[in-house]
Amino acid sequence: MKLSFPLVAIGLEVSMIVLFGFFVKYETEQNVQQQYSTNATKVDKFLELHPLFQDVHVMILVGFGFLMTFLKKYGFSSVGINLLIAALGLQWGTFIQGILHNKGQTIYIGIKNIINADFSTATVLISFGAVLGKISPVQMLIMTILEIAVFAGNEYVVGEIFQASDIGASMTIHAFGAYFGLAVAGVLYQSGLRRQNEKEESVYHSDLFAMIGTLFLWIFWPSFNSAIAETTEQQYLAIVNTYFSLVACVLTAYAFSSLVGKRGKLDMVHIQNATLAGGVAVGTCADMKIHPYGAMIIGSIAGTVSVLGFKFLTVYQDYHVDAGSCSRIFPWNGNCWRADHRFNSQVHCLCPAIY
Amino acid sequence: MKLSFPLVAIGLEVSMIVLFGFFVKYETEQNVQQQYSTNATKVDKFLELHPLFQDVHVMILVGFGFLMTFLKKYGFSSVGINLLIAALGLQWGTFIQGILHNKGQTIYIGIKNIINADFSTATVLISFGAVLGKISPVQMLIMTILEIAVFAGNEYVVGEIFQASDIGASMTIHAFGAYFGLAVAGVLYQSGLRRQNEKEESVYHSDLFAMIGTLFLWIFWPSFNSAIAETTEQQYLAIVNTYFSLVACVLTAYAFSSLVGKRGKLDMVHIQNATLAGGVAVGTCADMKIHPYGAMIIGSIAGTVSVLGFKFLTVYQDYHVDAGSCSRIFPWNGNCWRADHRFNSQVHCLCPAIY
Amino acid sequence: MKLSFPLVAIGLEVSMIVLFGFFVKYETEQNVQQQYSTNATKVDKFLELHPLFQDVHVMILVGFGFLMTFLKKYGFSSVGINLLIAALGLQWGTFIQGILHNKGQTIYIGIKNIINADFSTATVLISFGAVLGKISPVQMLIMTILEIAVFAGNEYVVGEIFQASDIGASMTIHAFGAYFGLAVAGVLYQSGLRRQNEKEESVYHSDLFAMIGTLFLWIFWPSFNSAIAETTEQQYLAIVNTYFSLVACVLTAYAFSSLVGKRGKLDMVHIQNATLAGGVAVGTCADMKIHPYGAMIIGSIAGTVSVLGFKFLTVYQDYHVDAGSCSRIFPWNGNCWRADHRFNSQVHCLCPAIY
Repeated sequence: MKLSFPLVAIGLEVSMIVLFGFFVKYETEQNVQQQYSTNATKVDKFLELHPLFQDVHVMILVGFGFLMTFLKKYGFSSVGINLLIAALGLQWGTFIQGILHNKGQTIYIGIKNIINADFSTATVLISFGAVLGKISPVQMLIMTILEIAVFAGNEYVVGEIFQASDIGASMTIHAFGAYFGLAVAGVLYQSGLRRQNEKEESVYHSDLFAMIGTLFLWIFWPSFNSAIAETTEQQYLAIVNTYFSLVACVLTAYAFSSLVGKRGKLDMVHIQNATLAGGVAVGTCADMKIHPYGAMIIGSIAGTVSVLGFKFLTVYQDYHVDAGSCSRIFPWNGNCWRADHRFNSQVHCLCPAIY
Repeated sequence: MKLSFPLVAIGLEVSMIVLFGFFVKYETEQNVQQQYSTNATKVDKFLELHPLFQDVHVMILVGFGFLMTFLKKYGFSSVGINLLIAALGLQWGTFIQGILHNKGQTIYIGIKNIINADFSTATVLISFGAVLGKISPVQMLIMTILEIAVFAGNEYVVGEIFQASDIGASMTIHAFGAYFGLAVAGVLYQSGLRRQNEKEESVYHSDLFAMIGTLFLWIFWPSFNSAIAETTEQQYLAIVNTYFSLVACVLTAYAFSSLVGKRGKLDMVHIQNATLAGGVAVGTCADMKIHPYGAMIIGSIAGTVSVLGFKFLTVYQDYHVDAGSCSRIFPWNGNCWRADHRFNSQVHCLCPAIY
Repeated sequence: MKLSFPLVAIGLEVSMIVLFGFFVKYETEQNVQQQYSTNATKVDKFLELHPLFQDVHVMILVGFGFLMTFLKKYGFSSVGINLLIAALGLQWGTFIQGILHNKGQTIYIGIKNIINADFSTATVLISFGAVLGKISPVQMLIMTILEIAVFAGNEYVVGEIFQASDIGASMTIHAFGAYFGLAVAGVLYQSGLRRQNEKEESVYHSDLFAMIGTLFLWIFWPSFNSAIAETTEQQYLAIVNTYFSLVACVLTAYAFSSLVGKRGKLDMVHIQNATLAGGVAVGTCADMKIHPYGAMIIGSIAGTVSVLGFKFLTVYQDYHVDAGSCSRIFPWNGNCWRADHRFNSQVHCLCPAIY
């Protein structure tokens, strides 16, 4: 048992090294005639997009890492396992997406490869939010391998076979899925823990740590939606649209958080999560000419729907039981969620009622 | 009462959407002949300045957001309301500045518009520091609308009518005003709270959270001062001058903090705030050839003046009274400041004596 | 005694201003014929590399600053003194490196000067990790002046006289030295403190603060290794190689952390420090064509060695003694390390046994 995690982790890393040894090269090694471009222009493109990549990278490591620290008991797991998943996901995502798009031939590492690897990793980090504290690190590693493979296969079918709009598709798949996972996990965990610990400093600080995650996600979401746009005009549109969707989203999220809160109080869970809904919602059409006011309408609706969804779609029942007796999860398949009581051996079983 | 915040927030967002629907378009829609430039070059300029914009954006959301978290009781308010103000301010600032500079005609959204919106938002976030915990979210929203309108009007008069130097003017108005507000609020709050809670872990951690704000402001201040410079040479000068002013400022701020502290101890309030004085002070002339040593002299003086100002200009009296009986504030108009005692129902009334 | 710090700090700042007044100018003032380039291209180069510089700057201030906050008692010292050292180091490093490379002639401030100043500052911040809480601020200032002078002299001899590869040399000197210092300080401190305070919230939160440092270092390390590369192709190689070394390093660091941990548990010290070993290890050859899989092998070994080194090279004895009686340190010279007991007057003396 103790050996399983080290063995799986080392085995996976060795596999990655072997796969990269056979299939992955620098883009400067690519035959240039084939691409109608020189090494110089490829490298220039790499450095030009590098700031956008760094923004996305901060979102993946700092944003997603700290977003889950509001769970007092899982602060280390959140930040630490987030880094582990990202490290594996970035390697495996680079390989599996590259191999599909290149039909089994050599992958030449460019900036888009590593941005796409960040995207595929984001999918796993979302699901991670829903299973945090429930599955072991070994299971997390296996889930990373499986989920990214499914994601890459799905993206390939949608993008290459059906020729659907690439940006839209990638957003539909992972960003929306991402947010859905966040919302579910956020509500189930947070409500239960809140009820017990409302007054504790530690929870208070946990929520401040989570705001580090929220803010870096919010600030850099325009880069996320624009990083892989084809043309610079599409990049411009994606940045501006996402920006205005996000600012509008904040106002409606706060308004409805206060409206559904006790005595008009704002709920930190909404502030941490629903403020990001605008970035997700506009993702599918961020590179189109929807006009700034169109983006703001989308963001306003997303903020509203997100808060109301948190409040009314997640009616759950909270049973106090002995440790260990909750059935295993995923929340959306009707099973229950467990959160340990901090002061005695009781366990909360949070069971969503109306999904 | 409970409905007032949601209604005001939603009303403001609907107003923004309507105003943006009538007045705001993409800069790629602009008639190109008029501007002697193509869509391509406009979009290139957007992406070229985008990293500087992101630096400023991090300052607004993370920097200002966390700077106020040293107030143990107002950590959520600080980060949460900061985001709310920013979201409204970024929309309203984009509109009101655009409409003034375009004399009521269509606003074409470029990178300078959203950087300027960040600047106008900064003004409000500063004042926010001084009123944190004292006024309601509804009042904050109204203050945001009013203050940005006044700021934009003032900037228009100074810059367009009097033809004053734009960078200098914008700095004089908001950065200096910003720092002034920070200094006043910082001292009044902090000193009172410190005296009571010197040993508490929570305050300790609150101060560490505040350092997140300080450091991101300190790191990105060169981008703040250079983001809207006209030429690339002015950008270069603004970055280098601000950089050297900031590093010099740190040494004198620490030196004088130790000099005026008890038994030579450094004060976290000075470290959190006075280290930024160099960025503000050099703001008005950052794009001029003041030489690196000139910038360092400016920074050194700013750090010194800031710490001494904190120490000696803010003699206040601290009355312990029953809850609620302090008169309402602004500190600089001679009224008193209230900080709740954490362990009993007493209230500190901090009254500045010599402003 | 009380006056020594203010006087030394002010004296150093005045000296810096005088030195800069005589020796440092803007690069736009440089005689252009001599350099075969115009002011415009120099300024363009500055702005082009500015995002990489900002990444490195975030590492220096936020990364190193927060990395040491896991030491519960030294959170303020860690972040606060880090900023003080950086402010002095950035000025002195700019001057002393410039004066050596220009053989005593005028220094024209370009982007590489301030990136190199960040590098020389990093050296001091590392050593700072090992002496945190043990030496006074005055001693820190003196150590900053001396260590950067030695670093710059050494770099000059290696790079200019022996004509060794510059990137490699700079990495060998400071990054490896850096990591060594971190590892030693991390283990000695952390183990001792851990044993006492394992259950305390404050330590828990301190570790989360430290992860802010770790993550920003991890994210931006590719920029660190590529910032001063000569050509854009070398920059590309350095970014890609460092990236893949880092991701591989995480998996082996986690695997071996679990392997050597009690009941397979991960150790936050390894996660905070060993995950960065990949960035350091690949530093010396990051700009060479070692292939992505080569970088991954280097990173894997670095993660493994780092964790095992932490575990087995730092057997130390822990004596509980009365306050103050431990001999003064550096750990690697055989002396002992002191950590105050938090609840009584006892002191831990941690003495490395087998270095």
